[in-house]
Amino acid sequence: MKATQSLAKFFPILQWLPQYQKKTFAGDLSASLIVAVLLIPQSLAYALLAGLPPQAGIYASILPLVVYAFFASSMVQSVGPMAISAVMTASALAPLAVMGSAEYSALAASLALLSGLFLAALGLLRLGFITQLLSHPVINGFTSGAAILIIIGQTTPLLGAQDHTLLHVIIHQPHHLLFGLTCLALLWLLGQPLNTLLLNKKVPHAQLIAKLSPLFLILLITAAVHGLNIQTRLIGPFPGQLPAFAWPDLHPDQLARLWLPAITIGLAGFLQSITIAQSLALKARRNIDSNQELIGLGAANIAAAASGGFPVSGGFSRTAVNAASGAHTPLAGVMTAAWIALAAHWFSDYLALLPQALLAATIILVAIRLIDFDFLIRSWRYDWRDGAAFISTAIAVLLLGAMQGIVAGTGVSLILFLYRSSQPHIAVVGRIAGTEHFRNINRFTTQTCPAVVAIRIDESLYFGNSAKIQAELIQILAQAPAAKHLLLILSAVNSIDYSAMQAISLLQENLRVRQIKIHLAEVKGPVMDHLRRSEMLSTLDGEVFLSAHLAMQTLSGVSEDFSI
Amino acid sequence: MKATQSLAKFFPILQWLPQYQKKTFAGDLSASLIVAVLLIPQSLAYALLAGLPPQAGIYASILPLVVYAFFASSMVQSVGPMAISAVMTASALAPLAVMGSAEYSALAASLALLSGLFLAALGLLRLGFITQLLSHPVINGFTSGAAILIIIGQTTPLLGAQDHTLLHVIIHQPHHLLFGLTCLALLWLLGQPLNTLLLNKKVPHAQLIAKLSPLFLILLITAAVHGLNIQTRLIGPFPGQLPAFAWPDLHPDQLARLWLPAITIGLAGFLQSITIAQSLALKARRNIDSNQELIGLGAANIAAAASGGFPVSGGFSRTAVNAASGAHTPLAGVMTAAWIALAAHWFSDYLALLPQALLAATIILVAIRLIDFDFLIRSWRYDWRDGAAFISTAIAVLLLGAMQGIVAGTGVSLILFLYRSSQPHIAVVGRIAGTEHFRNINRFTTQTCPAVVAIRIDESLYFGNSAKIQAELIQILAQAPAAKHLLLILSAVNSIDYSAMQAISLLQENLRVRQIKIHLAEVKGPVMDHLRRSEMLSTLDGEVFLSAHLAMQTLSGVSEDFSI
Repeated sequence: MKATQSLAKFFPILQWLPQYQKKTFAGDLSASLIVAVLLIPQSLAYALLAGLPPQAGIYASILPLVVYAFFASSMVQSVGPMAISAVMTASALAPLAVMGSAEYSALAASLALLSGLFLAALGLLRLGFITQLLSHPVINGFTSGAAILIIIGQTTPLLGAQDHTLLHVIIHQPHHLLFGLTCLALLWLLGQPLNTLLLNKKVPHAQLIAKLSPLFLILLITAAVHGLNIQTRLIGPFPGQLPAFAWPDLHPDQLARLWLPAITIGLAGFLQSITIAQSLALKARRNIDSNQELIGLGAANIAAAASGGFPVSGGFSRTAVNAASGAHTPLAGVMTAAWIALAAHWFSDYLALLPQALLAATIILVAIRLIDFDFLIRSWRYDWRDGAAFISTAIAVLLLGAMQGIVAGTGVSLILFLYRSSQPHIAVVGRIAGTEHFRNINRFTTQTCPAVVAIRIDESLYFGNSAKIQAELIQILAQAPAAKHLLLILSAVNSIDYSAMQAISLLQENLRVRQIKIHLAEVKGPVMDHLRRSEMLSTLDGEVFLSAHLAMQTLSGVSEDFSI
Repeated sequence: MKATQSLAKFFPILQWLPQYQKKTFAGDLSASLIVAVLLIPQSLAYALLAGLPPQAGIYASILPLVVYAFFASSMVQSVGPMAISAVMTASALAPLAVMGSAEYSALAASLALLSGLFLAALGLLRLGFITQLLSHPVINGFTSGAAILIIIGQTTPLLGAQDHTLLHVIIHQPHHLLFGLTCLALLWLLGQPLNTLLLNKKVPHAQLIAKLSPLFLILLITAAVHGLNIQTRLIGPFPGQLPAFAWPDLHPDQLARLWLPAITIGLAGFLQSITIAQSLALKARRNIDSNQELIGLGAANIAAAASGGFPVSGGFSRTAVNAASGAHTPLAGVMTAAWIALAAHWFSDYLALLPQALLAATIILVAIRLIDFDFLIRSWRYDWRDGAAFISTAIAVLLLGAMQGIVAGTGVSLILFLYRSSQPHIAVVGRIAGTEHFRNINRFTTQTCPAVVAIRIDESLYFGNSAKIQAELIQILAQAPAAKHLLLILSAVNSIDYSAMQAISLLQENLRVRQIKIHLAEVKGPVMDHLRRSEMLSTLDGEVFLSAHLAMQTLSGVSEDFSI
C-alpha cells in the first residue's frame, strides 16, 4: 500500500489516468489542437533562435511532452521550446561550436541532458526550496531583460539583414524591411486588438477565432510570398522523419564547460514553469508539488536530449492558452505531441516554405509581452529596493548576458536585504495613558519616566546591525541625563546572535560606570533559550521582565528612590 | 569656527595636545619605555616572519607610530608590525618575488601603501560600517586559524631546521631542538605563571617586573649563547641607520596583483585594531570614531610604505600593555618610536646577536594566546550556527590561506543568517484568559475560537521565506475546517518586501474559494507605509486591526453568524 502510494506520488499519472472521464476528453482534445497549431511555428522559430536547424524545434516538441505527462504535478503546463531557454542556449554554445553544425546540435542535446539531470536531482533531493532565493523583482527583471535581448536579436531576421548591415538593407533592400514590418504589424493587429474587437462585438466563438487567426495569417502571408514571388529568406527544407533516439556523448571537457549554463538554463526554465503552474493551480484549487515539478521538467529535458532536441521548459503564454482552451490533464500534452509529429511528417515540405521574417515577428510579439514595465513601476512605488533589484537584474542581463544577469540580480537582492536588516528601526516608547500599550513617543502622546529609557528594537539582532544599534542606544542615553534604567523591549527581536549578545554585555559594562542598568522585556521563547545558554544574563545588572508594562511598573517604582 | 572644528575632528591631536597635562606625561613616558622594550624584539621577529630583512621591522616601528599620533581616535592604541599582518604579507608576496630580495622589500612597501590608501579612503568616505559584516565568530575563527598557521611556520626557525628537515635536526642536531624548546619553556614560565606567582606573593612592582622579565631573559639567553658559544642561527648584522624616505614605485601590473591582498591585510589589521581600541575606550568612558581610526591606520600604513616598512596595525597584547603601563595619549607612541630609533641606531650590532630561535619562541607564545578555543565552546553552546562560522573560518584559513579564509568565513555567516531568516518561527496563538495577551497555544493555556485562526509570524517577510510561510499557513488551515478568518499578527514583522506582499495577495485569492478572509493585526508603522503604496490592501477580503485583541473581539463576534 505504502509502495503504491509513493509510486503514485512519483508518477502522478497513476492518480489521474485511472480516474479519467470522458467529458474531460473533449477539452483535452481541443486544447491539444490549438496548442499544436501555436507550437509548430514557434518551435521552428525557437530552434533558429537557439542556432539550431528547424527540425530540432520539432523534436523538442514531441518526446519531452509525452515524458512530462508521466511525471507532471501540474495538470495544464505546456512544455516545449521557449524563447528564453533558446536565447540562453545560443549564448552558451556560440563560443563552443559553429552554429548549425552537427557538433553544435550535439552540444545542445548535452546541455538539455545536463540541465535535465540537474533539475531531476534537485527534485529527488527535495531541494526545490532553493529556488526561493530568487525574488519576484529578480525573476521579472530577468525575464524583461532577456526579452529585450531576444527582440534585439530578432531584428536581423525580421529585416532580412543576415548577410548585410541594417543600413545596407534600409538603403538597398527596402522591400525586406517593408516585408518584415508588415508581418509584425499584421500579427500584432491579430493579437490583442482583434481579440478586444471580437469580444466587444460579441462575435460567436470570439476566443477560438482570436486564437486561430495568427495561424491563418501565417498561411496567408506564406501563400502570398510564394504566389507573388516576394523575395525573402525561407526556413528551407528539413528532414520530416521522426527524431532518432540517441544518447548524447558527454566528454569530461564538455561537462566542465556546460555545467554552469546547464544549471542556469534549467533554473530559469523551472522558474517560468513553476510560476505559471502555481498561479493556474491556485485558480483550479489544486496544489503544485514543486519538487515533483522539478522531476517532471528534468525528465522532459532528458527526453529532449535523447531525441535530438534542446533545453525545454513550460511557458507563460502557451500554458495559459492550453488551460483556457479546455485542457484538464497532461493527456492534452501527449495529444499535442502526436499532432506535431504527424504535421512534421506530412507537412514538412510546406513548413520549409515559411518566411524567416514571419517567424521573427512571432517571436518579437511573444517577447514584447514578457517585458513587464508595469511590474517595475509597482514594485518601485512599493519599495525602491524592490525596484532596484528589478532594474539591476535587467541591466545586468542586457550588459553581461542572461546567466550573469540572474546571478548579479540575486546578489543585489541579498545585499539589499542585508542592508535593510543592518539599518534597524529603533523607537523610544512610552505608555499610552490608561492602557498596557507602549508606543513610539514621537508618534503618540505617551507617559514616560525620566529614570527609565524604554526602547523597542524592530529587528533581529545580529553582527550586521549590533554596532549600529549600540551607537544609537549610546546617543539616546546621552540625551537622557536622569536615566538609571535602559529597558530593551524585544517583542520584534526574533533572534540574537553571539556577536549581538556580546555587544549587549559590553554595553552593560560601559553603562555600569554611569550606574545605568540594562533590563530586557518581552523576550521571545526561542531567543530566551539561547540567552540562557550564555553568560549574558549574568553580566546584566538588570532583570528580565515578561512584559514592558510589568517592567515599567517595577522600574518607575524603584526609580523614585533615585529622583530626589 | 566650523573649519577649526572639522580640522580638529580630522586631526584629533589638535584636541588632546593643547589640553596636555604634566601628570599624564609620567604615564606616557613609562608606557613608551615598556612598549619599546617589548616592540624591538617583536618587530625584528615579525620582519623575518614577513620574509623581510630585520631592519624592515624597525622601520615599521618608527614613522608609522609618529604619523598615527596625529590622526588617532584611540588614545592608547599601539601601532606597529603585527604577527597576522606579517604572515599575510608573506603569503601574498611569496609567489611574486624572492624572500629577502630588494624587489621583495619594494613589494612589501607597495602593499603597505595600497593597504593604507584603502583604509584611509574607507575612513574618508565614512564607510567604516562595512566592517560590521564580519561577525565575532568569523573574526575569532580567523585569528585562531592564522595563529595556528603562524605557530606551524615558526617551528622551523624555533628548531633551527631552516637548512634541513625536521627529522634531520632531531637525529643529527638535537642541540638545536633542545635550545629552541628551552627558549620556549623559559619564556612561557616568565609569562602567566610568573605573573600569577608575583601577584600571589604580593611582591612590590609585580606588574612591572612581570612586564620587563622577558627582556631580561632575552638578554640573558643571548649572553649565554655568545658566552657559552652555543651553536644557533643569529639574526645577523643589519644597517643601524634610520629609514630612508622613498615612495614605492607602483607599476600597474603590481597594482593588479596586490590590490586584493592589500584590502584583506588592511581589513584584518583594522579589525584587530578597532576591537582592542573600542574595548579599552569603553572602559575609559571614551568614544572611538571608527572612520577616524580607519584614517589613522591608513596614514600609519602610508608612513610605513614611505619609510621602507611593511603593513602595520594595532595589536591586542601590545595595546593592552600600553594602556596598563599608564599611556594616556598617543604621545606615548611618539616616544616609543623615539626609543626604537635610538636603540636601532646605537645597539644594532647587539640586536644582530639575537638568536632566531629565541624570536621564534616569542612569536609562538604571542600566537598561542590568539587561539581562542574557549570562544569556540561558548559560541557553539550559545548557537551552533555561531560555532559553525568560527570553525569554518578557522579551517578555511588553515587550508586555503588567511585571505581566502576571511572571505569564506564571511560568506558562511551570511548564508547562515539568510538560512535562519528563511526558516521563520510561526505560532498559532490564543488569548490568555482575562488578559489582552496572545500566546502560542502549544506553550500556554489559551482561549481560541474555531472560526478564527490567529497566527503570529516571528520574522520579517521577504522572498527568502514567503513560499515557506505560505506552505505552513496552508497546512495550518487544512487542520482547521471551521476556519473563516485567518488573522496574521505582524507584531514581529519589521518589513514585508514586494515578493512577500504578492504572496499574501495570492494566498487570499486561493483562500477566497474556501470563503476564508485574511486579516492583519499589529502592523508596524513603516510596514503599513509600504503596504498602503501597493495594491495589497484592496486585494484582502479582511480588515487591518490595531491589535490582536481588537481583531479577536470583532472576528469572534462575526464568527457566530457562521457557526450555526
